[in-house]
Amino acid sequence: MTAKTDVPTYDQPPGNEGHVIIAGFGRFGQIVGRVLSAQKISFTALDISADQVDFVKRYGAKIYYGDASRLDLLRAAKAEEARAFVLAIDDVEASLATAEMVRKNFPRLEIYARARNRQHAYRLMDLGIIIIWRETFASSLELTRDLLVGLGDDRDKADSIVSRFMEHDRMRLFEHYTHHTDDEKMQDLAKESAKELEEMFARDAEEADLIDDPAPDRRAAE
Amino acid sequence: MTAKTDVPTYDQPPGNEGHVIIAGFGRFGQIVGRVLSAQKISFTALDISADQVDFVKRYGAKIYYGDASRLDLLRAAKAEEARAFVLAIDDVEASLATAEMVRKNFPRLEIYARARNRQHAYRLMDLGIIIIWRETFASSLELTRDLLVGLGDDRDKADSIVSRFMEHDRMRLFEHYTHHTDDEKMQDLAKESAKELEEMFARDAEEADLIDDPAPDRRAAE
Repeated sequence: MTAKTDVPTYDQPPGNEGHVIIAGFGRFGQIVGRVLSAQKISFTALDISADQVDFVKRYGAKIYYGDASRLDLLRAAKAEEARAFVLAIDDVEASLATAEMVRKNFPRLEIYARARNRQHAYRLMDLGIIIIWRETFASSLELTRDLLVGLGDDRDKADSIVSRFMEHDRMRLFEHYTHHTDDEKMQDLAKESAKELEEMFARDAEEADLIDDPAPDRRAAE
Repeated sequence: MTAKTDVPTYDQPPGNEGHVIIAGFGRFGQIVGRVLSAQKISFTALDISADQVDFVKRYGAKIYYGDASRLDLLRAAKAEEARAFVLAIDDVEASLATAEMVRKNFPRLEIYARARNRQHAYRLMDLGIIIIWRETFASSLELTRDLLVGLGDDRDKADSIVSRFMEHDRMRLFEHYTHHTDDEKMQDLAKESAKELEEMFARDAEEADLIDDPAPDRRAAE
């Protein structure tokens, strides 16, 4: 799901003056901030650790230290005037607590979320968030693209394989979510996600005759 | 740097019969495995944790449990016949130990590496590895692309901004590495990486007049 069909709307759009909030200014949030900075789009970073990246203030950015799920911090960061909220916190529970607080208090603010894995993505979807990128997903596909070329595919073919995989897998994330909320709904998260990984392989293969005797395991699926 | 100009060569290419080794079968390695599986390219997974993903055997894959830096495990996985080695281990030290063992014992085997961050990437480069994807880098750019569209850019413009950023940042990784080995060479890794993040912002901005009074901080740059 991309922002293409989900452009946020505002009652009082702050126009070019509006800022983007980036919650979590580690490896993921920094990249977002660098692109925004280069594009002269102002942003406000929120991070749990102090004394880290104060220098960003010299690039027109603001930074606040503390728990991004705190309403007073979100208000200090002027969340009510923000154009978008980038949820780039690595810790799953901290990410969800922040998402919940933003959804509740700033319901019109569009959230662009980083997720650790599929299970984290489902919990973000529970909060109505739909623009979600699993944090290692795109890099693993970039590496796979290079690998396919190294193994002899031409680049167009590798591009096509990887693009189709990305698109299908992201669609499936939404399909599975729907299915997921229908029945046991994460009673047993670990078992569920392992079963899901297995199902991913099955659907990737699209060859029923390769499959026999499925057995559950305990790994979380990406 | 992509595989485009670095297609691996083999003395005795095992052709389509050859397998790919995936060391580390977590979130990153699973995606690589799923694409290979769907493409009917056989792979052998190595993972430190047992009892996890045995089901992949039903998809023509092999799996060995244990420390991928162990020579006996690499030999059991038939590393000498492999077409490529995907280093998808999340732990930095375990990744480097494995990379070192593979480079030493199977010097012709091309390594496609996942890196935690820039510092990890530099240490992989020290071992002669050049195909490296920082694990959260591409997803943070995908999210940024969606964000730019949400903020009003058309998709072509957002694509162009993100593609240029990706290309430039990856080039800089190599530039910095060269510079990096010249002088103090990671005497103070944390300080170095924080300084580098600051430099990234400075170069992104490309506007010297925005910058004043740089001060070091301690965050590792993505």
